[in-house]
Amino acid sequence: MSADLFDRAGALFRETQESIIGALESLEAQHGDGSRFRRDEWTRGPESNGPITGGGGLTCVLEGGRVFERAGVNFSAVRGRYSEEFARTLPGEGLDFAACGVSLVIHPRSPRLPTVHMNHRRLSRGATGWFGGGSDLTPYVLDEDDARHFHRTLHDACARHPAVASYDRFKRECDDYFYNHHRGEARGLGGIFFDYLTDDPEETLAFMRDSCAAFLLAYLPIVERHIDEDYTDAEREWQKLRRGRYVEFNLLHDRGTMFGLRTGGRVESILMSMPPEVSWRYAAEPEAGSREAALLEVLRTPRSWVGAP
Amino acid sequence: MSADLFDRAGALFRETQESIIGALESLEAQHGDGSRFRRDEWTRGPESNGPITGGGGLTCVLEGGRVFERAGVNFSAVRGRYSEEFARTLPGEGLDFAACGVSLVIHPRSPRLPTVHMNHRRLSRGATGWFGGGSDLTPYVLDEDDARHFHRTLHDACARHPAVASYDRFKRECDDYFYNHHRGEARGLGGIFFDYLTDDPEETLAFMRDSCAAFLLAYLPIVERHIDEDYTDAEREWQKLRRGRYVEFNLLHDRGTMFGLRTGGRVESILMSMPPEVSWRYAAEPEAGSREAALLEVLRTPRSWVGAP
Repeated sequence: MSADLFDRAGALFRETQESIIGALESLEAQHGDGSRFRRDEWTRGPESNGPITGGGGLTCVLEGGRVFERAGVNFSAVRGRYSEEFARTLPGEGLDFAACGVSLVIHPRSPRLPTVHMNHRRLSRGATGWFGGGSDLTPYVLDEDDARHFHRTLHDACARHPAVASYDRFKRECDDYFYNHHRGEARGLGGIFFDYLTDDPEETLAFMRDSCAAFLLAYLPIVERHIDEDYTDAEREWQKLRRGRYVEFNLLHDRGTMFGLRTGGRVESILMSMPPEVSWRYAAEPEAGSREAALLEVLRTPRSWVGAP
Repeated sequence: MSADLFDRAGALFRETQESIIGALESLEAQHGDGSRFRRDEWTRGPESNGPITGGGGLTCVLEGGRVFERAGVNFSAVRGRYSEEFARTLPGEGLDFAACGVSLVIHPRSPRLPTVHMNHRRLSRGATGWFGGGSDLTPYVLDEDDARHFHRTLHDACARHPAVASYDRFKRECDDYFYNHHRGEARGLGGIFFDYLTDDPEETLAFMRDSCAAFLLAYLPIVERHIDEDYTDAEREWQKLRRGRYVEFNLLHDRGTMFGLRTGGRVESILMSMPPEVSWRYAAEPEAGSREAALLEVLRTPRSWVGAP
């Protein structure tokens, strides 16, 4: 029955991958240059380095599109053995693990379009399994309507499953997790983040289904609102600097990236999260009163986006 | 006497900083656009966050030069208290620490000019002090004469101080340290790297003096040889991709970056090591038989650059 749940979760994640790829390709066809995803199927044999010893995945990457400068939408279902040290940090017994999930990062070309990250996964250690995941938004200029729409959509997906999901808790966990401690600022405007959901697997799977579906409902309208806006070179420069912060978070702080690289995951699939063009500049600060400065203020003091305005 | 040694080491590092800044500005004046270093003096009071509670430094950054796209040459002399956990990994007793050093990363604009890193430092825990440091070269195309010249110069500095320095050991430590484990490739062509030199402090200080001086002797002739070479857009693209590997090393693996960020060091001074313009692209591989492919081969199988040809 747990194996059955793993397979059903895997099927959901695989379908989610296809529907997101379809939506992004159709946006690129309508507003861009018709770029499509490259698809790389991969398998890991028992001879592979690292703890992952079986299974595989489908890495899908679109690069150089007019709308999407770099988008990776990955599915994987692997099994293997945890290290003793790593296993100690997890629920369950023993060292056997299984993991399946869908994971994406979208870096649009225009600085008017936010970067977005989504991940939904099922993990197990021995006979104990749990769900985890979330979605979060990283814009380059502050648009409060976008932030409210994104959070409201995720809020509603949680609200349909009160037995297993809590928007307030998942929003707080997201703010705490996607935080660049060394900079004293959030990576973006947050969203929801949750892990170790072990109770009531059937209801949690139903929530995962809603949460996966909520992703496109939350993100696409934001893209459609801003996709035809012009932008300046200065906005593009600012985007590249902020993408540097994205890199800093993912390489310095992200447990998912660490987990993948340490368990012998496929490097090019894990690091598809890196933005395509990035800058660092010494002590760069936006002009006072600019939209960029307004964004920084919110990143330094995360806000509530749902509820009384 | 140990305090005296700390001050004399500090004076050496500060002089080294000035002479390197002078040499880089003069190259920029002769071959570039006359860009100069911006100088930021900073101090940390006892009220500061993190274990560093006193001292300060001089961060010098040149950005947007025609020759040097981004160069940071930093001096600092700080004191504070280690965490218990961190202190356990170090020689000496107690939690008091003092550190002074000079640290630089130079990212030239032209892909024909290698990136270079150098760091020389004195650290102490309680009454125990030690020296550490090194220099290493990260080119974007393979030029074997450059590699031999760089290593030979560092070799000769070590050879003048056989009681405290060993090129063979320091070269091996450099290859081991500046290694992108997740990629299975070295960051660059190496150089020398050493730490915890506690014996014979006077002779070690003499070696540090030679090693600091060797940096310009090792690097400048390489810059002068290639500074007027033309390069293609494809070479520039390759450089930006390889700079991505530099970022990966510094944020995923570098203990110096971690140490700085965790002890409450000055973020903009620590992250001046980040390259100015960087790219990531999915599964990018150079053309077989190209100079770029030749470089990758050497990064995957580090070579000896001194001795019988």
